[in-house]
Formats: sequence, structure tokens, C-alpha cells
Amino acid sequence: MTQLIENAQEQTYGSVTGLRCKECGASYPAVALYVCEACFGPLEVHYDYSNLNSRQLKSEIESGPKSLWRYASLLPAQPFVRSLEGVGFTPLQRAYNLGERLGLHELYIKNDAVNPSHSFKDRPVAVAVAKAIELGFDTIACASTGNLAGAVAAAGARAGLKTYVFVPANIEPGKITAAAVYGAQIVPINGTYDEVNRLASQIADEYGWAFTNINMRPYYSEGSKTLAYETAEQLGWRLPDHVVIPIASGSLYTKIAKGFEELIKLRLVQDETLPVISGAQPSGCGPVAAAFAGGYTEIKPVKQPTTIAHSLAIGSPADGFYSLKVAQRTGGTIGQVNDEEIIDAIKLLAQTEGIFTEPAGGVTLATLRNLAQAGKIGRDEVTVLYITGNGLKTQNVIEGLFPISAPVAPRLSAFEHWLEAR
Amino acid sequence: MTQLIENAQEQTYGSVTGLRCKECGASYPAVALYVCEACFGPLEVHYDYSNLNSRQLKSEIESGPKSLWRYASLLPAQPFVRSLEGVGFTPLQRAYNLGERLGLHELYIKNDAVNPSHSFKDRPVAVAVAKAIELGFDTIACASTGNLAGAVAAAGARAGLKTYVFVPANIEPGKITAAAVYGAQIVPINGTYDEVNRLASQIADEYGWAFTNINMRPYYSEGSKTLAYETAEQLGWRLPDHVVIPIASGSLYTKIAKGFEELIKLRLVQDETLPVISGAQPSGCGPVAAAFAGGYTEIKPVKQPTTIAHSLAIGSPADGFYSLKVAQRTGGTIGQVNDEEIIDAIKLLAQTEGIFTEPAGGVTLATLRNLAQAGKIGRDEVTVLYITGNGLKTQNVIEGLFPISAPVAPRLSAFEHWLEAR
Repeated sequence: MTQLIENAQEQTYGSVTGLRCKECGASYPAVALYVCEACFGPLEVHYDYSNLNSRQLKSEIESGPKSLWRYASLLPAQPFVRSLEGVGFTPLQRAYNLGERLGLHELYIKNDAVNPSHSFKDRPVAVAVAKAIELGFDTIACASTGNLAGAVAAAGARAGLKTYVFVPANIEPGKITAAAVYGAQIVPINGTYDEVNRLASQIADEYGWAFTNINMRPYYSEGSKTLAYETAEQLGWRLPDHVVIPIASGSLYTKIAKGFEELIKLRLVQDETLPVISGAQPSGCGPVAAAFAGGYTEIKPVKQPTTIAHSLAIGSPADGFYSLKVAQRTGGTIGQVNDEEIIDAIKLLAQTEGIFTEPAGGVTLATLRNLAQAGKIGRDEVTVLYITGNGLKTQNVIEGLFPISAPVAPRLSAFEHWLEAR
Repeated sequence: MTQLIENAQEQTYGSVTGLRCKECGASYPAVALYVCEACFGPLEVHYDYSNLNSRQLKSEIESGPKSLWRYASLLPAQPFVRSLEGVGFTPLQRAYNLGERLGLHELYIKNDAVNPSHSFKDRPVAVAVAKAIELGFDTIACASTGNLAGAVAAAGARAGLKTYVFVPANIEPGKITAAAVYGAQIVPINGTYDEVNRLASQIADEYGWAFTNINMRPYYSEGSKTLAYETAEQLGWRLPDHVVIPIASGSLYTKIAKGFEELIKLRLVQDETLPVISGAQPSGCGPVAAAFAGGYTEIKPVKQPTTIAHSLAIGSPADGFYSLKVAQRTGGTIGQVNDEEIIDAIKLLAQTEGIFTEPAGGVTLATLRNLAQAGKIGRDEVTVLYITGNGLKTQNVIEGLFPISAPVAPRLSAFEHWLEAR
């Protein structure tokens, strides 16, 4: 670790002042560090936004590129010109049909399944790769439950970096194909995500590679703030009332909260209070939801996740504790749902809004549905559902649910026969 | 047919004056018609753009939504508020790495694989559905090689219409799943696309359904013009020098040409000549390429397509003849490539630019590569490659190409062992 600090030239960009420990507040330079040497707390990027003028910033954003780099002033790395085009600034779809079904008058879907590698992970990876290049790394890597693997592999190809992705050997075949095609070295690990992650930490130290979600984590995780910025901008620079977000490590969940907080502080929105921020986990791997339900502050790790929502199968979530705090502070709920509810919700979303999500999206929608049914979301509240991954990568989970009839002969009479039998 | 004219209330929108026969010039109202009753020629939407002011139009476009509806003034249907968000306005990616490989200094990729249902078909479908609703239809349908099925199914779900999609029974399983999940009725037909299409024409007449690519075809096909508009706008309102486009029915190819022509006529660009417009077909179904190579004006239908590029497997392309004319008029080439070249190109695109395309994209890139190698594209020409579909739907074609190693134990020593064996 010390070696990495010495080798890497410090680069501060924009408003970044350095890294700061979330626990003890110790300061560090903006290099490839992620754990506080004093207290082992996680490090986070620290900014001084006092020089930013809100009016000027807003006009800069609005005239910026149609990607997450429109928010470059609020990010910890200089836009990298050879990153994938079109990361972020994804559609916010008004969900008329789904809203009617759930009794919510102003429901929106933030559809992050249409990013270049088809999940929200393109956002943190864009920032991590930009920073890794600033710091002079020639290899990027990650520990992934699947989507991150695709995002790192695609960005690595475009950036011209050597790329290694470490995945649990049991992830969906579609997610492996969707990473291997970009030329990344796939390292399938015989173990859970948490075991993959532990091994990856050792490798990061040993080999001096930039692991997006380990030694690049402070920069990487900031990329997810852009989901909050975009939501507010697309609503006409106002905050929603209630949002529902999937929780794996808790990074996305806490960083969306951070994004909303920054918008308030920077007076980019007139709102003065945070939205209610609810989280969603699968019951087969719901350590944060369990702690929330039980009123604990300690997260009890799930050793063997058993859920079809592989992308949320993190038994020992790094930001679990901070996620609980966000839920408590904003009056949110962290719910959990089972596999059947997940599949029902995948179908519901596709059939009402024309969006095909992976199981993580099913988890989030099923949780929203439960919240709506329990009356925890008012019918006139502006509510946003975050869809973070694409169903095309996890077609296996819905295989067999839509039996296709036997082929019909290409004649009108045969079709009429077919139609009568419906 | 006559019945449909009588039932449908004529709606003219914006600059639309009606339908006009491409062959004899006969005029028709803007209803659900697609064949000239006088000469059986295809009908096309006719506009009177004389009231449009180019400066005003440009500013209207630039301040419009981040979707194809920013060009609503140049389209034949009123934007439909419940259509899928984010159709069109997809990234134009500067292809640095791929350009270096091919010796092209200014190569761009128009990545239409990130549309809501993951292919360019969302564009024509958005327009067709908007028009079908204007005309009062309650059922939409299509004959599809796969991508159109997904686009119609997704749009139908969102629009709240009954939806039927007719596909050859042998299309990729991923493309069937990606349509069935939206709740569409899938009708698998034991035959080629051309047989599916013939049957669908009969059903359109018989049942009074809006078939996007049959009785809605004049409106539907106009949606593809937006690929030309966006390319020019994203290049800073200038036309490229050379473009390469896949050819299935030839509709996309000819409508991109029409889009560029309109930009010149409307003085939205300063250019006065069309780009060189090249087309790409798979050699297992390349009737237009064969006619081009042989110097014929008649397209000889391919009865049994044999190609992995199913989305281009139209043996009897409706706009084949018009495609030939576009190639001749602009100095373009219509090339053809085999399955091996297609797969090589899929890998090349993924590994240089981080974009995973379906075989149709492989066809287009392999054709571009052949043109570049033959010196038919100058190294400083602004060249645009159109990627129209997503590799996640056709994972079957690359299965087995990226063998994954046996799982590695979650220990540093095991990983070191694995790495040494590379």
C-alpha cells in the first residue's frame, strides 16, 4: 500500500482536496488508497465546493455532454476522452401504467439498463478508469457479481488497459459472455462474492493493479452520485419525495443519498430536505434488510447467499452500516423480497413499462410494491424506482416462463386455427 | 384495404401532405395504406417542408427532448406521450482504437444497440405506434427477424395495445425471450422471414391490425431517417464523407439516405452532396450485394438464407431495388461477408471499442474493414459505422469462443498458479 502511495503521483482535480476517513476524519492524498491507516475506516473523496457558483454550475451542466461527464465539476477525476460514450444521462421514464397498478400518481423509472454495458456499473467504472489512468496504472481489475465485470471489461478495452475480472464461478453465463467478449481475462473463483473480494484485495496489494471497487473504491463509488444528479435535473431541478434503490454493497444506495445532499448544499435544487430513501434486498441475501427489521446497527454477514438476484448477493456489504444510517436519517425502509416476488416484478415491469430488467430490478420493484401496498408511499408523492441492470444478461431466470406454441404453418387458415386455440 | 381507408380517420401532422407512390406519383391520404392501387408501387410519406425555417428548426431541435422526437417536425406522427423514453439520440462514439486498426483517422460508431429494446427498431416502431394510435388501432403487430419483435412488444406494452409478433420459428432464443417478456403474443411460423411477411400481409388485411412494417410501413420506415439527422447533429451539423449501413429489407439504408438528403434541402447542413453510402449484407443472404456485384437492377430473391446474421436474413428485400439506386447515386459499394468474417468483426468491435454487437453489426464492420483495406475509404474521410443491434440477444453465436478456465480456489497461491499458466 505504502509503495503505491509513493509510486503514484498525486493528482487533484477540480474541487477535490484529497481522501478522508469516514470514521476518524484523517486526511490522505488523492491516490490509490481506500482504508484509513489509523483506524481502518473506509476512505472517501473530500471536496471543497465553496468556489462553485450554483447558477454558473447549473448552466455548465446543462450545456455539457449527454453523459455523466456533464457533472465533471462534482466528480473526482478529469473526464477521460477514450472512455465509453454515453455512460449515464439515461432516461427517466414516467411510469403511467405501473403507477396506475400501484396507486402512485407520479412514479418514475430511472432506467440505467441502457448504459453502454447495460448496467449502472458503467458510471463508477468511468470514474475509476479515468482516475486509474491519471495515476498511471496499466491494468484494471475488479471483483464482481457480474455487471461490474462487463463494465470493467468494456471500459478496459476502450481505454487500452490490461483487464482482469474476478467473479464467483456460479454467476449467470450471460454475464460471463458479456465480459469475455471484450477481451478481458476472466478469473472464475470457487467461492462466494465475499471470498472473491477478499482474494482481490490481496492481489491489489501484491500486483499493483487498479481494482475499480477496491483500491480505486473512493473514486469509483463517487460515480454513482450521478444517478441522484440526473434524477433531479430530469425532474426539472427538484428532488423526488421517495426513492427505492437496490442494495448490494450499499455503495450505490449511500452515494445516491450523498448526491442528493450535495444538490441541496450547492443550492442546485430549492428543496431543503432529503427524499425518503428506501432500500431493497433479496431475502436470500438480505443482511442490511435483516438488521433494519431487527433494529440492529451491526450487519450479520450472510455466508451462503441463496437468491436469483446474483448481482445483489453480497453477504458482507462494505457499506451496510452506512446504508442503515441513511434509511434511519431519511425515514426510509429497507425491505426484502423472495424469488417469486422478484420474478413477478420482472414481468410486471416489462408488461407495463416495456423495460426488461435483471433480478436486481425485480427486487427493487417488488419492494416498492410492498411499500405502496403498506401505505408507506403517498399516492401523490414523486417516487423514483432505480432499475440498475438488464434482463438480457439473465435470461436464464425467466426461461420456461413464456412457453412458445408449436410452429404454425405459413398459411392464413393455420393462423386462424392457432388464434382460435388461444 | 378500402375498408381500412374508410374506417380510419385521416390525420395529417406537421408538414405531412399525404402518401405518394414512389413509382407513379399517385397521391393518397395519410392512412393505413402501403401499396399504390394504380401501379402496386410502394407508398411513401410526402411532406411540404416549405414553411420550415432552417434556423428556427435547428434551435427547436437542439432544445428538444433527448430522443428521436427532437426531430418531430420532420416525422409523420405526433409524438406519443406514452411511448418508451429514450428512443434514439444514441451515442456517436469516436472510434480511436478501431480507426487505428483500420487506418481510418476519423471513424465514428453510431451505437444504436443502447435503445430501450436494444436495436434501431425502436425508432421506426416509435413512429408507427404513434401513427397507429392516431388512426385508432387497438392492436399492433409485426413480421420480424427478431429485433422488431422486441421493439413492437416493448412499445405495445407501454402503449397499452394488444400485441402480436410473427417470427420465423428458427430465430435466436434470446430474441424470442426478449419479446415474450413484454407480454406480446408470439406467433412462431414454420418458414422463412419472407413467408412470415407474406402471411402477415394477409392478416393485416383480414384482421385490421396495425402491422408496423406492413400497413404502417410508410410511417414506420420514416423513423429510420432520424439516424441520419442525429449523425449530422452529433458531428456538429455536417454530413460524414462515407457511411456503412447493414441491409435487410433496405428500408434503413434508403431512409438514412433520405434523411441526409432532407438535411441538405432544409439547409440544416452546409454540405451540398450526399455522403458515399455503402451497404453490407451477409453472403448467406446477400441478394442486394449480389445484384450490385453483377451490375443487375433486378434483385434475385434468396429462397433459403444461410447466415448467422438472422436479422439480415430477408431473401426478398422490399427496398432492394431502391438500395441499389442509392449505392449507384452516391458512389457506394454493397459488400457481402461470410460468417467467419462476421464473428471476427464482432470480436474486433468489442475488443477495440467496448461495444458488443449482434451479427448484423459484425456484417457491417467486416464490410467496412474490406472497404478500408481495398482503399475505397480515404484515411481522412469522416466515416460512420452503424451498429444497429445488441450482442446480448445473440449470445449463442459466440458461445464457446471464449473458453473460461476451471474455477480457481479463493487463495492468492491458487491465483498465482493460474496466472503462471496463462
